[in-house]
Amino acid sequence: VDLNCDVGEADTPEDLAREASAAALVTSVSVACGFHAGDPGQMKRMVELAAAGEIAVGVHPGFPDREGRGRRPMQLRPEEAYDLVLYQIGALDAFARRAGIALQHVKPHGALYNMAARQRPLAEAVVAATHDFRGDLVFVGLPGSEMEHVALNGHVPFAAEAFADRSYEPDGTLTPRGEPGAVIDDPEIAAARAVEIVRDGRIRTRGGVVIPMRADTLCIHGDNPHAERTAQAIRRALGEAGIEIAPFGTGPR
Amino acid sequence: VDLNCDVGEADTPEDLAREASAAALVTSVSVACGFHAGDPGQMKRMVELAAAGEIAVGVHPGFPDREGRGRRPMQLRPEEAYDLVLYQIGALDAFARRAGIALQHVKPHGALYNMAARQRPLAEAVVAATHDFRGDLVFVGLPGSEMEHVALNGHVPFAAEAFADRSYEPDGTLTPRGEPGAVIDDPEIAAARAVEIVRDGRIRTRGGVVIPMRADTLCIHGDNPHAERTAQAIRRALGEAGIEIAPFGTGPR
Amino acid sequence: VDLNCDVGEADTPEDLAREASAAALVTSVSVACGFHAGDPGQMKRMVELAAAGEIAVGVHPGFPDREGRGRRPMQLRPEEAYDLVLYQIGALDAFARRAGIALQHVKPHGALYNMAARQRPLAEAVVAATHDFRGDLVFVGLPGSEMEHVALNGHVPFAAEAFADRSYEPDGTLTPRGEPGAVIDDPEIAAARAVEIVRDGRIRTRGGVVIPMRADTLCIHGDNPHAERTAQAIRRALGEAGIEIAPFGTGPR
Amino acid sequence: VDLNCDVGEADTPEDLAREASAAALVTSVSVACGFHAGDPGQMKRMVELAAAGEIAVGVHPGFPDREGRGRRPMQLRPEEAYDLVLYQIGALDAFARRAGIALQHVKPHGALYNMAARQRPLAEAVVAATHDFRGDLVFVGLPGSEMEHVALNGHVPFAAEAFADRSYEPDGTLTPRGEPGAVIDDPEIAAARAVEIVRDGRIRTRGGVVIPMRADTLCIHGDNPHAERTAQAIRRALGEAGIEIAPFGTGPR
Repeated sequence: VDLNCDVGEADTPEDLAREASAAALVTSVSVACGFHAGDPGQMKRMVELAAAGEIAVGVHPGFPDREGRGRRPMQLRPEEAYDLVLYQIGALDAFARRAGIALQHVKPHGALYNMAARQRPLAEAVVAATHDFRGDLVFVGLPGSEMEHVALNGHVPFAAEAFADRSYEPDGTLTPRGEPGAVIDDPEIAAARAVEIVRDGRIRTRGGVVIPMRADTLCIHGDNPHAERTAQAIRRALGEAGIEIAPFGTGPR
Repeated sequence: VDLNCDVGEADTPEDLAREASAAALVTSVSVACGFHAGDPGQMKRMVELAAAGEIAVGVHPGFPDREGRGRRPMQLRPEEAYDLVLYQIGALDAFARRAGIALQHVKPHGALYNMAARQRPLAEAVVAATHDFRGDLVFVGLPGSEMEHVALNGHVPFAAEAFADRSYEPDGTLTPRGEPGAVIDDPEIAAARAVEIVRDGRIRTRGGVVIPMRADTLCIHGDNPHAERTAQAIRRALGEAGIEIAPFGTGPR
Repeated sequence: VDLNCDVGEADTPEDLAREASAAALVTSVSVACGFHAGDPGQMKRMVELAAAGEIAVGVHPGFPDREGRGRRPMQLRPEEAYDLVLYQIGALDAFARRAGIALQHVKPHGALYNMAARQRPLAEAVVAATHDFRGDLVFVGLPGSEMEHVALNGHVPFAAEAFADRSYEPDGTLTPRGEPGAVIDDPEIAAARAVEIVRDGRIRTRGGVVIPMRADTLCIHGDNPHAERTAQAIRRALGEAGIEIAPFGTGPR
Repeated sequence: VDLNCDVGEADTPEDLAREASAAALVTSVSVACGFHAGDPGQMKRMVELAAAGEIAVGVHPGFPDREGRGRRPMQLRPEEAYDLVLYQIGALDAFARRAGIALQHVKPHGALYNMAARQRPLAEAVVAATHDFRGDLVFVGLPGSEMEHVALNGHVPFAAEAFADRSYEPDGTLTPRGEPGAVIDDPEIAAARAVEIVRDGRIRTRGGVVIPMRADTLCIHGDNPHAERTAQAIRRALGEAGIEIAPFGTGPR
C-alpha cells in the first residue's frame, strides 16, 4: 500500500518543517499548485525534496480560493474545472521535469474532491484533464465515488484512497469533522484500522457495522501534532502485518 | 521576419474578438498565463485558435499583479522570478500539448520585460527558466539588452524584438509612452519603419539620428483601434519589399 | 423611480469610458469593490465621478472570484458572507467619505445576488452586514425574494429592483440569459416595459401572462452597445408618463 | 510607552493562537487587511479580541502580494499607494465600528514601510491617505524617516516605533536580518535595550556606538517562539524602571 500526504500548503517556516517531516514518512506527496494554497517557490522545493527522498509526486489541484483554503464549494462549469485542473498539472509538471522525475498522480483538493465524488459532470472534467495530460497519470479519489466510476469507464488508472485516522459512516463516506468521534486521535487505533482496511478490505464504522473498504493509498494528515506519531504507528503496524509500503504508481522516474 | 502580438489578456467578449482579429494578422502570439492577466479558459481558447490558424505560440509570463496589469515593477529575488516564469511556462505547455503543438518562445511581459532588459540577475533568472524547461525554446527580448547578452552567453536561442509603431531614442530604447511622438499612429509611416528595420537593419530615432536596429520579430499591438490597419500596412509593405513573414521558430509542430 | 447601473468593473480605457457614459444616464451607481472586479483606483474615480454628477453611490459586493467575475456560485458559511460584505462596504465607504458623500445602498453582485435571493441564511448575512454598517443604508434586491423578506423583517430599508430589458417568467424570476427572448434588444420595447412596471405595477411575461411587478429602481446594463440607447429611450418614456427619475435614497449628501 | 504587535496574518489555528497570546501582552495591535495577508474573517476576530481586551487597534496596510507576504518591493505610483492604503483603512474601520471602537493608528507593512521610510512621494501618499480618512488617526513609522518628516509637516499625529529585539546601525536603521547579531534572542538583553531606548532616548548600535533613539511604541514580534518570553521580560523591565505601558493614542473608544 502507498502512504500519501498533502504538501505545499505551508505559510510559515514551521509549517514547512512539519510538512517536510510528514513527507519523510510517506511514499507519495500531493503538491498544492497556487490556487487554494502554495506558490511556485514551494512547489519547486517540495518537488526537489521528494525527488531527493525518492518519494512519488502528484498534483493537488484545488479551487481558486486562498481565503477559503479550497474548502468552500464553488460551482464551476465542467469546462472551467477541466481548464483549471489542466493548468495546475502543467504548472507542477514544469518543476517535476526540472527535477528529472515524472508526475505519478492527480488528487483533487478539498471542495473539488468532495464535489467530484458526487457530481458526475465534474468528475468527468477532472478525470479528463488528468487523462489528456498524460494517459498513464493515476487519478486518486474516493472508492465507490463518481471519480472512480468515471476513471474506470475511461480506462484512466485509479487509486482508491482511505483514511486510517477518520471514522466512516455505513454508506462509506467519512463522518463529518464536526461529529463526535470523527477524528481518531489514538495512533494505535489508527494503526489497527490501517491494517484492517489494507489486509482485510473492510472497516468498522462509527456505529459498529463493518463495511467493505479498499485502499491503494492511505492519506496521512500532516497538519496536526499527532500526525507524526500516527504515521509512525501506521508504518509499524503495516510492517508487522507484512504489508509492503510503496508508491502505487511506478514511483519517481 | 516574424510578426507577434500579445493575447490572452481579454476581459470582455469584445476584447476577445479584437485579440482574435489581431492574432489572424501575425505569425506568433504570446499568451498571458493568469498572473498579470488571463486565465486557464482564455489560455486554452487562444492556444486552440493559434493551432487551428498555424500561428506559433509562446509564453508571456508576468508579475503576479492583476490590478497593475503586470506593468508595475516588483522587486523579486532572482530565484522567485525563475520560479514564477517556470510555473507559467508549464501551465501554458499543458494547453499546447493538448492542442498537439510545441511552444515556440518565451517573452516576458511589461515590468518584467523592462526590468530584465537592464538587470543582469533578473535576466539570468528568466532566461534560465526558459532554458531549463526546454533547451530549444526561443527567448524573445530587446536587442542589446541584458536579456540578449545572457541568452547568447548561455547558448539560449534568442529572437530580437522591434516595434514599428513606436519611436526610439538614440540609445536604442523606446521613447516613453508619455512623450510626444512616442506612438506612431500613421499606418503608412509604421509600415515604412518596419521595412527600414528589417531590410536595412536601422531606424531613424525621434531626434533624427539613424541607429542600427535588428528584428527577428516585430511586435504588433492588439489593444488599440488602429492596430488592425497598422498590421495590414506592415504586412503589405514587407511583402512589397520581398521580405518573407514567418515564425522565427520552427512554428507550430 | 431610480435608475441604477453597475460600475467599477472596467478593464480597459474603453470599458471605463462606456461606464462613465452609462453613469451619466442614471441616478444611482453600484460600485464593484475589488473582489469580483474593480480595484481601489477605479473605486475612487467612480465615487468622484458620481459625487460630481450628483449621482447616488452604493456598494456592489461580490464573491472573491475575479476569474469568474463573481458569477460562479460559491458556497460560503453565512458568517463568511457577512464578513466579506462588511469588508467591501467599509472599503468603498472610505472613498465616499473622502468625496464628502454618504453611501446610499448595498446591492449584491452576480452569484451572491442570485443565491441570497433564494437562500434565507445567506440573505440574513448580507442584510445584517448592511444594517450593521449603518442602519439607514438601503438594501437593493429582487422583489419577493428572501432578501426582501429578511430586510423587511429586520426593518432594513429595501428597494425593489426590476429589469426593463429582460424577460420575466410567471414566477417573477428573470428568464435565464441563454433562453430565446431573454434579453430585450429593442430600446422602444424596453422603454414601454419600464413604464408598465413603474406606472402599472405589472409586467407581461415571456409566455404572455401578466404578473405584478414592483420597482423602486430599474437596472440599466452598461455593458453592451445598445445600453446607451436603451437608457435614453427609458428616460424619455418615463418622462412622457410623468414619472420622476430620482435616487431612491436621500441621494448624495 | 506603547507596546505593539502585528496580527491578522495567521494561516493555521496555531498561528492564530500564537497571535492571540502575543496580543494579550501588548497595548496596540496592527491588523493585516487582506492584501499581503489576512482576510475579512480574521480582521473581525482580531478586532473583537482587541475590543474585549481593551487593546488599541490600528491598520496594517501592505502591498497586494500574498505570495511575497508584502515583503517584496513593488513600485507603485504614489496615487496607487494612496488608494490602496485608504481602501484597507476603510475595510478595517467597518469591523472597528461594528465592535464599537475607533481605529487608533495606521502602520504600513513590510516593503511598503521600508520604501515609505526612504521615498518622499510614497511617504506623502500613505500619510495623506491616513490623514484624509480621519485627521486624528496616528501614523506609526520609523523615527527620522521620510514618514516622520511628512507626517510632522502635515500636522499628522506621528508615533515613533523602535525595536528592542533588533540591532541598529550607526545611521539609525535596523541591521538587516541576514547579518550576524541582527536579531537579539536573549529576552533579558532585549528588555534592557527597551529601557535604554524609552528612558534614556538612546541605543547602543551593533558596532558599540551609542546613538539617539526615540520610541512612542515598541514593536513586539509575535511570530517566533521567543516572542512571548521577550515580551514578558520587556514588560517587567519597563515596569521596574517606572515606565507606564499604555496605548499612544487615546486607546479604544
